[in-house]
Amino acid sequence: LTRIVIVGFQSAGLTAAAAARLYNREAEITVVERRTYATYHPCGLPFVLGGEVPNIRDLVETTPRLPGVNVRLGVEAKAIDTQEKMLEVQDLRTLQVEKIPYDRLILATGSQALKPPIPGIDLGNVFCLRTVEDGQRILAALSRSRRAVVVGAGPIGVEAASALRERGLEVVLVEMQPAVLPGMLDPDMAAGVAERLAKAGIRVLCSKAVKELRGEGEVSSVVLEGEEIPADLVIMAIGVKPDVELAVKAGLKLGPTRMIAVDDHLRTSDPDIFAIGDCAEARCLITGRPLRSQLATTAIRMGRVAGVNAAGGDEVFEGVLNAVVTMASGLEVASVGLTATAASEAGFETSTARVRCLTKPHYFPGAGPMTIKLVAERKGQRILGGQVIGDGAAGRANLLALAIRKGMTAKELSQIDYCYAPPVSDSIEPLVVAAEALLRRR
Amino acid sequence: LTRIVIVGFQSAGLTAAAAARLYNREAEITVVERRTYATYHPCGLPFVLGGEVPNIRDLVETTPRLPGVNVRLGVEAKAIDTQEKMLEVQDLRTLQVEKIPYDRLILATGSQALKPPIPGIDLGNVFCLRTVEDGQRILAALSRSRRAVVVGAGPIGVEAASALRERGLEVVLVEMQPAVLPGMLDPDMAAGVAERLAKAGIRVLCSKAVKELRGEGEVSSVVLEGEEIPADLVIMAIGVKPDVELAVKAGLKLGPTRMIAVDDHLRTSDPDIFAIGDCAEARCLITGRPLRSQLATTAIRMGRVAGVNAAGGDEVFEGVLNAVVTMASGLEVASVGLTATAASEAGFETSTARVRCLTKPHYFPGAGPMTIKLVAERKGQRILGGQVIGDGAAGRANLLALAIRKGMTAKELSQIDYCYAPPVSDSIEPLVVAAEALLRRR
Repeated sequence: LTRIVIVGFQSAGLTAAAAARLYNREAEITVVERRTYATYHPCGLPFVLGGEVPNIRDLVETTPRLPGVNVRLGVEAKAIDTQEKMLEVQDLRTLQVEKIPYDRLILATGSQALKPPIPGIDLGNVFCLRTVEDGQRILAALSRSRRAVVVGAGPIGVEAASALRERGLEVVLVEMQPAVLPGMLDPDMAAGVAERLAKAGIRVLCSKAVKELRGEGEVSSVVLEGEEIPADLVIMAIGVKPDVELAVKAGLKLGPTRMIAVDDHLRTSDPDIFAIGDCAEARCLITGRPLRSQLATTAIRMGRVAGVNAAGGDEVFEGVLNAVVTMASGLEVASVGLTATAASEAGFETSTARVRCLTKPHYFPGAGPMTIKLVAERKGQRILGGQVIGDGAAGRANLLALAIRKGMTAKELSQIDYCYAPPVSDSIEPLVVAAEALLRRR
Repeated sequence: LTRIVIVGFQSAGLTAAAAARLYNREAEITVVERRTYATYHPCGLPFVLGGEVPNIRDLVETTPRLPGVNVRLGVEAKAIDTQEKMLEVQDLRTLQVEKIPYDRLILATGSQALKPPIPGIDLGNVFCLRTVEDGQRILAALSRSRRAVVVGAGPIGVEAASALRERGLEVVLVEMQPAVLPGMLDPDMAAGVAERLAKAGIRVLCSKAVKELRGEGEVSSVVLEGEEIPADLVIMAIGVKPDVELAVKAGLKLGPTRMIAVDDHLRTSDPDIFAIGDCAEARCLITGRPLRSQLATTAIRMGRVAGVNAAGGDEVFEGVLNAVVTMASGLEVASVGLTATAASEAGFETSTARVRCLTKPHYFPGAGPMTIKLVAERKGQRILGGQVIGDGAAGRANLLALAIRKGMTAKELSQIDYCYAPPVSDSIEPLVVAAEALLRRR
């Protein structure tokens, strides 16, 4: 009988529990979760703000539905005794402390929204967008807000800005990097997204750092270099920081990204403890380098591997390609693998091609533009990454993910089989057009 | 200087001309095409009938836009002198005959709609749906028609039936096989499509052969075994027959499917003559067996290879997986590789899994069902085929096409990277769910 204890019941912890349960019918599986409700869907929050999802309660699963798993809500993990193999926990209602013995421990402690240490960060109406409570607070503030500033133009920032604009607020989106969606897109592709945001009425300011938030009690303006922007609502969307406190206290090693270091079985420096999800370091499948993935999909994929391994299996987590999709004021934007910028930084000599196609035949109503940028190694033209903008971008990024994983070249990509029917797609697949453009670069 | 002559200016011929032009700046390229307009988009015809495409003229490209290629419209190829390497052609307006010398000849003669030799087939208001003229005739007949029978429930038949129903006609769809979309789907998956068609008000009759069409001058009923269905409009959509007359007269070999036999460079039995598109035999990438592909995408892919080879290159056409998508009364249906039925016929021992997921998170408006069936080899679980129904089916089939081409197993498919954002997809990719279901079959 194996006793598996899991800390955290979001995407990673939930999936690990389910995978362990499936793999080993005998294991005794306990999950402790600080929240008083089971799981929620953080990626849905921007769409609650925008009104597409009518009720924030819809994002919350109040009770765990996982037969054969003992899920203890409202219970916080306080310390790990790695010698005795005990997890010390505290019930947040009764404040009672107890020790839970484990044979295998899985840390899925997640991450928290990053709040920069700038003056005014604690003013009223300055929010993050990470928890259900964040969402509720912003919803409550919406009706008395007119001018919003969103700081950070990653996927969440872009979606939040789009949502607030949709709700009729004046919105300024501020990004420190020279272009929006900096991790996902090269600047040439980001320009198209910024254009769409501007068209929707969002003022986009890049290469601007926030110096200070001003106001009395509540925020009234955001101070950038050389500019002060009036604002009665601010959303900080500059990223998340991994929750590694428990691991550090237990003496587990951190990796170069300051996340919990894990091997390819997702074991930490203590072989009986696994780490998964936003608190665990991932590895880039292309470069082999450690990176912060912190995606729900990565959490789920890691959860599956660690759950099986903790239950006695032998699964390998090979790494991530960071396939990401976001909606920018109705524009579908997806990315996978390395951008040209990231590929150069990683030491690759690259060859790139950018093409513009239609999502359907020109004569079909609803045909829209699709822009694709492919990044390949100059020699041999192995695909390293892709950026896709337009309806159906996510599907193309998923296909590119597979192509990258399989080490495919532009030549091979130009020869793929694909479907065609006018209401769905054009007779020449945009990815093939992009691959052929790369071939002409040889 | 190479003289390349191409017969036929649809998907295959057009692509071959363009590819040859790109590959060899010196080549002299001539295309002869019987039609008086350049190309048209036959796959768009059902959507003209349904009204989504407002004008049938939108499907026609009246003038060829291919710089550096001499396209001769209204000119019919009559005979090939393989000894002298001359193509005999006739101008259909002047009736003048001439001989065009070639170094390489590419046959892209296409196919014609199949008309079964049953009584009444030549009655008025009995149509095929293949050419622009077919479309125009049906459009003209629509206003005076009330009851339609569509014979053949392949993609075109299903789309035509959906279109006529959309226009308000009473529609009966008759299929000889036991289920709709027989080449694309196994019967268990076809049931869902038949249900959707029925819901749209189409009467679907399977396992029924048409014996006779009755009427005086114009059709008034369709006679099946044991049933006579009143009809004032009939569309025959039972398939196409390859146009191989020119090739046969020239002594070129046909393959077991009675299409022009070609090698992996798309050369016919005469090494200076290539054949591509609907008239040329394709090969299944999985079984290696000859098959009738007759898809626009196959024509395009073949055109590229033959165009380059005719111009002095060395490209291989590896075969097809027959990725197909169709719309059944608004339902997206896609298929790739082998169905379970086809896999068994090809001698595979198979393992299959069918799952039902959502296209988006349950809380997101517009989330709809997606059904996926995967077919794998029982041993080792190499993926052989997939059938997908629901929004985004085509993208999944494209991804499966790549997985099949790369010889991926269910295990590998369960580990893919994919994108997630609530407006676009759920946090667990349906293909992963399907792959995991297959894994549990081991």
